[in-house]
Amino acid sequence: MKLLKDRILKDGKSFEGGILKVDSFINHQMDPILMKSIGVEFVRRFGNLPMNKIITIEASGIAPAIMLGYLLELPVVFVKKAVPKTMNNMLTASVYSYTKDKTYDICVSTDFLTKTDQVVFIDDFLANGNASIGVYELVKKAGATMLGMGFIIEKSFQKGNERLQELNIQIESLARIKTLGDNLIEFED
Amino acid sequence: MKLLKDRILKDGKSFEGGILKVDSFINHQMDPILMKSIGVEFVRRFGNLPMNKIITIEASGIAPAIMLGYLLELPVVFVKKAVPKTMNNMLTASVYSYTKDKTYDICVSTDFLTKTDQVVFIDDFLANGNASIGVYELVKKAGATMLGMGFIIEKSFQKGNERLQELNIQIESLARIKTLGDNLIEFED
Repeated sequence: MKLLKDRILKDGKSFEGGILKVDSFINHQMDPILMKSIGVEFVRRFGNLPMNKIITIEASGIAPAIMLGYLLELPVVFVKKAVPKTMNNMLTASVYSYTKDKTYDICVSTDFLTKTDQVVFIDDFLANGNASIGVYELVKKAGATMLGMGFIIEKSFQKGNERLQELNIQIESLARIKTLGDNLIEFED
Repeated sequence: MKLLKDRILKDGKSFEGGILKVDSFINHQMDPILMKSIGVEFVRRFGNLPMNKIITIEASGIAPAIMLGYLLELPVVFVKKAVPKTMNNMLTASVYSYTKDKTYDICVSTDFLTKTDQVVFIDDFLANGNASIGVYELVKKAGATMLGMGFIIEKSFQKGNERLQELNIQIESLARIKTLGDNLIEFED
């Protein structure tokens, strides 16, 4: 997605150790016009799948997911990263975060994820794939079907894509980055 | 906002103790079409203000805020409820949550909130107003100007609105609920 890649080159900040900061337009300050374009691109890529619901994970996944849900007129469920006391019928999975070096629980209510649901998962980043695999486990536990997963940015030098390919579902990343260094961003292709 | 009130009566669940669950269309599963209509209503109410940015707080504020930002073509900053290790130039405030009975820190980067910014704050619920006042403090600390605050649902039997009126800015709630009981929802007006 050229618009996105150009924006990453213009406003993204990269550092040694594979670090990319896109908090000026994706995950702290958000550009809603770009988010709509991202939604349109996900429609283009997933539009042939028979999904009835979009699933995402708080917080940075919500903006692209709601735009996709809006365009497709489908409900959007966001998986929570903290387990609320008041939630009923809860499914949980554990996710290890490399960035934070800790394991946390994610959860979803079975009220909104059932065996008749066919979902596409949307998130901002694919790196090691741990959060995605956690959400995949929740979908499995609910008896629902995961049809595809879409990411705004993939760090293709990490293991996530390879691990997700084993699920045999459609995996899409709108910008695949193969190298990140100090002031250096290189895309695949 | 009639569409919203009708939806709350249809799909909201109310319980003794002033509890309202709207997690089937607002804060766990989200209806993107309704969120767009909510965005339009916020445009109608805040459209005359000279704001250059929308501010919200993760996670349930993001969907209505991104819709408002999309319609107005303005950036949206979401305040974080956990303080990231990697964030630079961080401002923080403390918020006491009655629901969770604990105090937590919220934060925003001064990279995205400066003294030239004039913002409108959007969130899903106004109850005691603690989160809103925390965000107001962040905006003040950044030297920015808070022009208005908009909420999808207000529990008008709690203190939030009264406390926010003291800020002398425009406060808007799209559905104001005066009574919540077991299977009982009554709106103001």
